[in-house]
Amino acid sequence: MSARAHPTDGDLNPATDGGDLPIKSLPHRHKVGVPPKQNMFQDFMYTFKETFFHDDPLRQFKDQPKSKKFMLGLQSVFPVFDWGRNYNLKKFRGDLIAGLTIASLCIPQDIGYAKLANLDPKYGLYSSFVPPLVYACMGSSRDIAIGPVAVVSLLLGTLLRAEIDPNTNPDEYLRLAFTATFFAGVTEAALGFFRLGFLIDFLSHAAVVGFMGGAAITIALQQLKGFLGIKTFTKKTDIIAVLDSVFSSAHHGWNWQTILIGASFLTFLLISKFIGKKSKRLFWIPAIAPLISVIISTFFVYITRADKQGVQIVKHLDKGINPSSFNQIYFSGHYLAKGIRIGVVAGMVALTEAVAIGRTFAAMKDYQIDGNKEMVALGVMNVVGSMSSCYVATGSFSRSAVNFMAGCQTAVSNIIMSIVVLLTLLFLTPLFKYTPNAILAAIIINAVIPLIDIQAAILIFKVDKLDFVACMGAFFGVIFVSVEIGLLIAVSISFAKILLQVTRPRTAVLGNIPRTSVYRNIQQYPEATMVPGVLTIRVDSAIYFSNSNYVRERIQRWLLEEEEKVKAAGLPRIQFLIIEMSPVTDIDTSGIHSLEDLYKSLQKRDIQLILANPGPLVIGKLHLSHFADMLGQDNIFLTVADAVESCCPKISDEV
Amino acid sequence: MSARAHPTDGDLNPATDGGDLPIKSLPHRHKVGVPPKQNMFQDFMYTFKETFFHDDPLRQFKDQPKSKKFMLGLQSVFPVFDWGRNYNLKKFRGDLIAGLTIASLCIPQDIGYAKLANLDPKYGLYSSFVPPLVYACMGSSRDIAIGPVAVVSLLLGTLLRAEIDPNTNPDEYLRLAFTATFFAGVTEAALGFFRLGFLIDFLSHAAVVGFMGGAAITIALQQLKGFLGIKTFTKKTDIIAVLDSVFSSAHHGWNWQTILIGASFLTFLLISKFIGKKSKRLFWIPAIAPLISVIISTFFVYITRADKQGVQIVKHLDKGINPSSFNQIYFSGHYLAKGIRIGVVAGMVALTEAVAIGRTFAAMKDYQIDGNKEMVALGVMNVVGSMSSCYVATGSFSRSAVNFMAGCQTAVSNIIMSIVVLLTLLFLTPLFKYTPNAILAAIIINAVIPLIDIQAAILIFKVDKLDFVACMGAFFGVIFVSVEIGLLIAVSISFAKILLQVTRPRTAVLGNIPRTSVYRNIQQYPEATMVPGVLTIRVDSAIYFSNSNYVRERIQRWLLEEEEKVKAAGLPRIQFLIIEMSPVTDIDTSGIHSLEDLYKSLQKRDIQLILANPGPLVIGKLHLSHFADMLGQDNIFLTVADAVESCCPKISDEV
Repeated sequence: MSARAHPTDGDLNPATDGGDLPIKSLPHRHKVGVPPKQNMFQDFMYTFKETFFHDDPLRQFKDQPKSKKFMLGLQSVFPVFDWGRNYNLKKFRGDLIAGLTIASLCIPQDIGYAKLANLDPKYGLYSSFVPPLVYACMGSSRDIAIGPVAVVSLLLGTLLRAEIDPNTNPDEYLRLAFTATFFAGVTEAALGFFRLGFLIDFLSHAAVVGFMGGAAITIALQQLKGFLGIKTFTKKTDIIAVLDSVFSSAHHGWNWQTILIGASFLTFLLISKFIGKKSKRLFWIPAIAPLISVIISTFFVYITRADKQGVQIVKHLDKGINPSSFNQIYFSGHYLAKGIRIGVVAGMVALTEAVAIGRTFAAMKDYQIDGNKEMVALGVMNVVGSMSSCYVATGSFSRSAVNFMAGCQTAVSNIIMSIVVLLTLLFLTPLFKYTPNAILAAIIINAVIPLIDIQAAILIFKVDKLDFVACMGAFFGVIFVSVEIGLLIAVSISFAKILLQVTRPRTAVLGNIPRTSVYRNIQQYPEATMVPGVLTIRVDSAIYFSNSNYVRERIQRWLLEEEEKVKAAGLPRIQFLIIEMSPVTDIDTSGIHSLEDLYKSLQKRDIQLILANPGPLVIGKLHLSHFADMLGQDNIFLTVADAVESCCPKISDEV
Repeated sequence: MSARAHPTDGDLNPATDGGDLPIKSLPHRHKVGVPPKQNMFQDFMYTFKETFFHDDPLRQFKDQPKSKKFMLGLQSVFPVFDWGRNYNLKKFRGDLIAGLTIASLCIPQDIGYAKLANLDPKYGLYSSFVPPLVYACMGSSRDIAIGPVAVVSLLLGTLLRAEIDPNTNPDEYLRLAFTATFFAGVTEAALGFFRLGFLIDFLSHAAVVGFMGGAAITIALQQLKGFLGIKTFTKKTDIIAVLDSVFSSAHHGWNWQTILIGASFLTFLLISKFIGKKSKRLFWIPAIAPLISVIISTFFVYITRADKQGVQIVKHLDKGINPSSFNQIYFSGHYLAKGIRIGVVAGMVALTEAVAIGRTFAAMKDYQIDGNKEMVALGVMNVVGSMSSCYVATGSFSRSAVNFMAGCQTAVSNIIMSIVVLLTLLFLTPLFKYTPNAILAAIIINAVIPLIDIQAAILIFKVDKLDFVACMGAFFGVIFVSVEIGLLIAVSISFAKILLQVTRPRTAVLGNIPRTSVYRNIQQYPEATMVPGVLTIRVDSAIYFSNSNYVRERIQRWLLEEEEKVKAAGLPRIQFLIIEMSPVTDIDTSGIHSLEDLYKSLQKRDIQLILANPGPLVIGKLHLSHFADMLGQDNIFLTVADAVESCCPKISDEV
């Protein structure tokens, strides 16, 4: 790397830039540098490293003694050994309060989410006991709250139900759920281990916003069953089937006592949420409101025996901790492939959510999260979970936010939560017997409302209309068809956008900004002026096989349009076509062929092709392929201004 | 668009650019321009137009009277109405010679290629009669020679054989072949009509080179059956199965008379090809050599009755022109889906070849080809072909080259060829009875050799090692497994490369090139010096959801590394991080979030984030999302040099 020097050093001769000025005889004309050649292995290793190890994970191991290396290795697999050594009572106080708060929030949510996955409520609680413990030892996020979440529960429930009916074959359904959970964990861990974590970046933010919003509405609609006390309800999740189901039972199926209980507590929850938003210090009000609602409503139903009036209640919740479920996982047979498929999909979605949460809070507190290590932790947690009767757990956005606001310091808050859930499983489950389903529905509706991120949708609308189309596509796909279709739409649109990006790069005509030697896009800087006889075009992307033809054709079209204008205005004809290559970071053989074709076609029309500022990779390849020789070294310049200057005398002669 | 002005106008005050110099009080500090806002519709239409209509196909219709518009429309669907009006005897002379030459080349090739598709030889000739006629009316390439080609024949044969055994069910096999041809045509026409032609650009040049080379070797190996006179031959196409089949029959299955005939004529063909290469004027020698070989060898076999010595001959070739096959196409039932699948694959590959040929020769003669219109022509030609007993036809590279060299002027050369094939079908087919299969094998081997493009492979190796891996992957996939697998590998690697490109954009640290105000990559320009206290990083790609996290993390790593260096050297700490945004052509909400995260994280460490030269789209979005306000308008500069200058006084104060 070059030495640092103050920029004024040697600046006695102020010149030039993104272009020299068109003033003759400058003392320094810098040539375009050709970087030293790398051999195949170096080249390959560089790309490999940037792709899979761009974060240089072994950095800290450099130049360390062996014992230290072992310790660092242990810490990197189990971060608990890292932060555990500096753990103190003050931190514990923060974690204790945060842990108790999220426990009070998670218990009622877990019971409801399990139902979204068509599972018994206890599996929701199980999933808030084992996975958080595993995560606490292996995960690197300090703020994430682990457990079942609404969207993944719904997705898993939909995918599983498509294979097995949970009402007629509950045992097989449960086994498939564990199988899917196992493979969700394997998928997550494998993505992390093979450092393929970047795959989840392929789901665009816009698509995720739309998908989450749609899923939230779908989940809320599903809750109408419990909320209105309807007994026979559609199994489909699309809005039309659900509303049809709701209104067709309006006259005989709704239960006013249920609605009364549900509506009053939903109002209570919404008010408490509003209070929490108004004052950050009162965050604990919405956090404990659900548990309070459960307690009050359960007590109320128990006293009034409202269950005899048709108010549906939880009825039965098994006591005791997670039984082993290792031997229930399908490792062979018909359901193995289905379990893998469902697991991969659910695992990826769960991962997307957890990683987004981890990143968000890490950015807030300014610490680093190793995405790939995080995925391994989440994966191991689900694999262990699948063997102890848990279904897919991941990071919950709402509970993580509460965890953060309650002042959590480390993953110990997850351990506290886990212990509270354990105690609940051991001693308190019978108390949930009289909890009305309507309360659970109200809690879930309240919990999923923030997933409908209207602000984000508005921002997307403002910033990028195509992104907004993607967002709405995923949204309507989920609410009008199903979560799977919505997800498929989200993924497809995301990919289509990536492909669009690489096939149709932007190009721009540049002009000289008055009184400078800067050349900029004339659409952005209307004051920029074009040099007569010269057309300067900037190509804003690497030139690869996917866009090389487009780039060539687009440049030719710019030229055609410009020639027509010049002709109409009676200006001198265009003799030089300068391509500003600064943004062209790389080129492949197809790209070089396109440049060759362009060069030949311009030659026939007596127009000289000139390149300005090709980057290190590009200039290297142009030399290797001998295109640089074909074009002539004299026609490659460091800056557009240098290039323009070299053209000008020739033009002046002719005019 | 701005007015043109001579660049020296107003340059009394020579300053600045890709950076002002760090000299105080410059009179002009240009602000970063914010382009006028576009409404959703304009924005959407612009993207839509650039994606699907970047060539502005309706350009010529602008401002024309109605009658003229009708004529132009007719000409655009049937270019024959365009070039036909200027057709003259001189052009006809060129076309006649070229047409006769390619006819002499195509007749023996057609017979051999039909065998690659497991079809009777006559179907090869049929496919050189109808499709060229259709193409001549609708196609826009002047040099392409239409007919069956080796690679598509092999691919079609392999795909069809996987569904139906051509020996036991020849009728069904034939029907499926027509069905596949029909849908290949529909696919091609649909891609063109819906202007999705850019999809074929997703197959990278490197992958195509590897695939073609592998297919050529596979085809040559298949010819060993005819060349060595082996009777029982494997049905697999991988090199191991074929060589096993060849050598296991070495002692009893080879026929020396066949080998003698084959080898001598292959030598003759290779010598004639060598002569043609040495002198361009003798191009007609390799062009007519195959037909001469066929005539001589057929005569020889007829005289010597070598067929009684075990020399295999064509035996029977039906007389008469193409029968209708419309009612043989499966429009329903079991085979419909299979026909569609095979047709889509074969159609895409055929399209890739034809479009590449069209582009190559158009570039040589400097005329424009409308890729999408071309696809419609190729599609219609195959649809019509499928109804008249033809299988998939496309442009043949070798015959097109001969056509070009023989001086063809328009698509009339295809009509001439077609007429010659017609006459052959009507009168000459009985003469092929004694043509030895070994000659056809020799002709095909000779024809596919140029597909093994070692020069291109070497260039790819030199230019891009990853591309070379893709090339070899496709190559070995074809020869060791099958054409399908090779094609799948080619497509997968091409896509992986696109995804890699968008997830892992390059970033570079910039330094000031001495005695200029230019900032360039310090790895390319080792003389560039960095400004103390300032780190300048260029991001070389649009920042989208697919790379936003990577970009942020990579910038943070550059900063970390630089801080360590600065610390070790005892230089002033880094206070400013300048991001050169010139190559950042676009940004989405994920990208903006990443910048926000970066900004917040830098704030905590007391480092100021500065942006230099954001493009029109980017600056517009930064304003819409209020990130520009968060960052402060004062921290967005037109050039890196401007930005550095603004930092310097503050740094000087502190040091």
